[in-house]
Amino acid sequence: MDNIPGEHFRTIWLHPDDPATVQIIDQRRLPHRYEVWDLRNHADGAFAIREMLVRGAPLIGATAAWSLYLAALEARTESADLSRQLELVRTAAGTLAGTRPTAVNLRWGIERMLAQLDSVTDSDDMVSRLRSEAEAICDEDVEISRCIGEHGVSLLADIAERKNGAAVNILTHCNAGSLATINWGTATAPMYMAHEQGIPIHVWVDETRPRNQGSQLTAWELAQSGIDHTVVVDNAGGHLMQHGMVDICITGTDRTTRAGDVANKIGTYLKALAAHDSGVPFYVALPSTTIDWSITDGLRDIPIEERSTDEVTHITGLDGDEIRAVRTVTEESPVKNYAFDVTPARLVTGLITERGICKASEEGLAGLFPERVGVTV
Amino acid sequence: MDNIPGEHFRTIWLHPDDPATVQIIDQRRLPHRYEVWDLRNHADGAFAIREMLVRGAPLIGATAAWSLYLAALEARTESADLSRQLELVRTAAGTLAGTRPTAVNLRWGIERMLAQLDSVTDSDDMVSRLRSEAEAICDEDVEISRCIGEHGVSLLADIAERKNGAAVNILTHCNAGSLATINWGTATAPMYMAHEQGIPIHVWVDETRPRNQGSQLTAWELAQSGIDHTVVVDNAGGHLMQHGMVDICITGTDRTTRAGDVANKIGTYLKALAAHDSGVPFYVALPSTTIDWSITDGLRDIPIEERSTDEVTHITGLDGDEIRAVRTVTEESPVKNYAFDVTPARLVTGLITERGICKASEEGLAGLFPERVGVTV
Repeated sequence: MDNIPGEHFRTIWLHPDDPATVQIIDQRRLPHRYEVWDLRNHADGAFAIREMLVRGAPLIGATAAWSLYLAALEARTESADLSRQLELVRTAAGTLAGTRPTAVNLRWGIERMLAQLDSVTDSDDMVSRLRSEAEAICDEDVEISRCIGEHGVSLLADIAERKNGAAVNILTHCNAGSLATINWGTATAPMYMAHEQGIPIHVWVDETRPRNQGSQLTAWELAQSGIDHTVVVDNAGGHLMQHGMVDICITGTDRTTRAGDVANKIGTYLKALAAHDSGVPFYVALPSTTIDWSITDGLRDIPIEERSTDEVTHITGLDGDEIRAVRTVTEESPVKNYAFDVTPARLVTGLITERGICKASEEGLAGLFPERVGVTV
Repeated sequence: MDNIPGEHFRTIWLHPDDPATVQIIDQRRLPHRYEVWDLRNHADGAFAIREMLVRGAPLIGATAAWSLYLAALEARTESADLSRQLELVRTAAGTLAGTRPTAVNLRWGIERMLAQLDSVTDSDDMVSRLRSEAEAICDEDVEISRCIGEHGVSLLADIAERKNGAAVNILTHCNAGSLATINWGTATAPMYMAHEQGIPIHVWVDETRPRNQGSQLTAWELAQSGIDHTVVVDNAGGHLMQHGMVDICITGTDRTTRAGDVANKIGTYLKALAAHDSGVPFYVALPSTTIDWSITDGLRDIPIEERSTDEVTHITGLDGDEIRAVRTVTEESPVKNYAFDVTPARLVTGLITERGICKASEEGLAGLFPERVGVTV
């Protein structure tokens, strides 16, 4: 494996020899297999988002963006009429927008791409503009993650200093890693930076049921990069924090309100409660694109996606050399699968954004993003 | 399946045709297979406890008790000398005591059996006394569970009345069910009683990683008894409570301090935090045998068992008709497996015991068990 998180890693890219194909890693197969998947049209992109070949707010947004570039190629083939072509791209945007209701980056990525359509002069211009915009979205995301890492690493450096060089114990939930973004990750960016700077760290990786993105993706990423880590079940975090085994929690977020409430993978709220109860700082790392400036109260206003119960009833793993799914819940027992929960701002010590670290509050966010003050979308 | 939780159900019993064999259900195979396992000597019993064919505080105690009866049979065969026989039984007790360090019932069951040895007159008397004592331990446990159920059901009846007959939503963690006791369970006893009394209930069953005792055992029990329930991942409980979807939490405990701290399956503490944060009453059901009167501060004084990492890395389920284990964590990632956590008394609304319901405090417990006041073991 040479494609490991770090300088030259990307989670989505244009095929080097075929500009009509976008490539992604099929994250459903990790950590057992590293397989690259080709997206040849926007329906492939919608499938990849819906079936979670890709996941994580920034990567979902980038995949939607590249899918609209593919939609433009399709439209150019299907019709010679520019207005019909634009209509086809807009229809594809609707399809893509419906794949994951909670992810605000999905809408953001799509809207940014659609804004390009307003000034296109012909179909080649449309294709070229959408390609440039998708590339820009990815490049900017890498830069955002790098900035999050640079701000966040200061928290880890401070703790390391206080601990006289003993390893900083970080707990993270789900995968807000390189695999969730284009590179570096959000919650993991400070970890990668710390590792590069020689700050000793150890990461407690929550398994993250269902789908196990922690044990499957975060653990894989950290292992590839040689970062010391330990996988624990989601239930363990409270015990670890009660006993001083966690110095800081850092998670990602799929959607953040203007008041600092965060909707993240189900179970994040429980870890925030435990951190609060044990006096462990709880930080959330986010690109500002995950902030939904139109809402304040996350509990009231963020719809929580319910996903297929198969994610709970079946678990995939290795049996010898084969990847297979086993059913752990019998058909006699009904199942519910809520994908996210909302952690109220009062439980969040701070937000680590590309512009710096702030309090999880309207005032905190307004200080870093003054251009959004008073803006209600 | 005719052996379902309720009037005629038992989780451990003497073989009807062979008084030298004790039978248990191999709970590792549930919910996919119902298989009875024969214990023919005390080593079989130690194996069954250590490998968790049986689990749950009362059933562990009962299995240890029956194992000492089997040890007496072995001793009678091995030696004609009573003092040698008694020594063999005491050695067996030491083996059994080492199988599960956290379970206080294990020590309790063993000590109660060993007390019988003081007055035995000959080897047949030894066997007969140990058999009677093991039977008594089981019968008393059934009666204790029934009493817990009768006290606990009043809480559910009150909520049902307040909800005008809408189903009472109960959340439970792990399996403090019939399968953890001899019959009725502890946390589940009020549920079975409510079901028998026609009080409408619905149970949220935490999957309970690792080992999945919720989705594998509690869900199986409730399904067998026709009780409405839904399996959710451990991460979901906070979300459910934030949104008013839980009226009451009831869990069991493996060990309770005299001040009302409870050590229960890892993750219980997180649910108690969430209940506290959302104003949901959090009750713990327990036979008084799980109270360790010698300790006060659970966080400081209860050693937390670390179990095999295989429980985290491998998951067992059905693949077609076959039960198989798949590996979900790669060998590149280290794993830790803490089996319990401690929920401080301040987060526990009340304790449901065989003598009634009390506050989770030294005063509360002293009110119900005045004979223990001032007793430090």
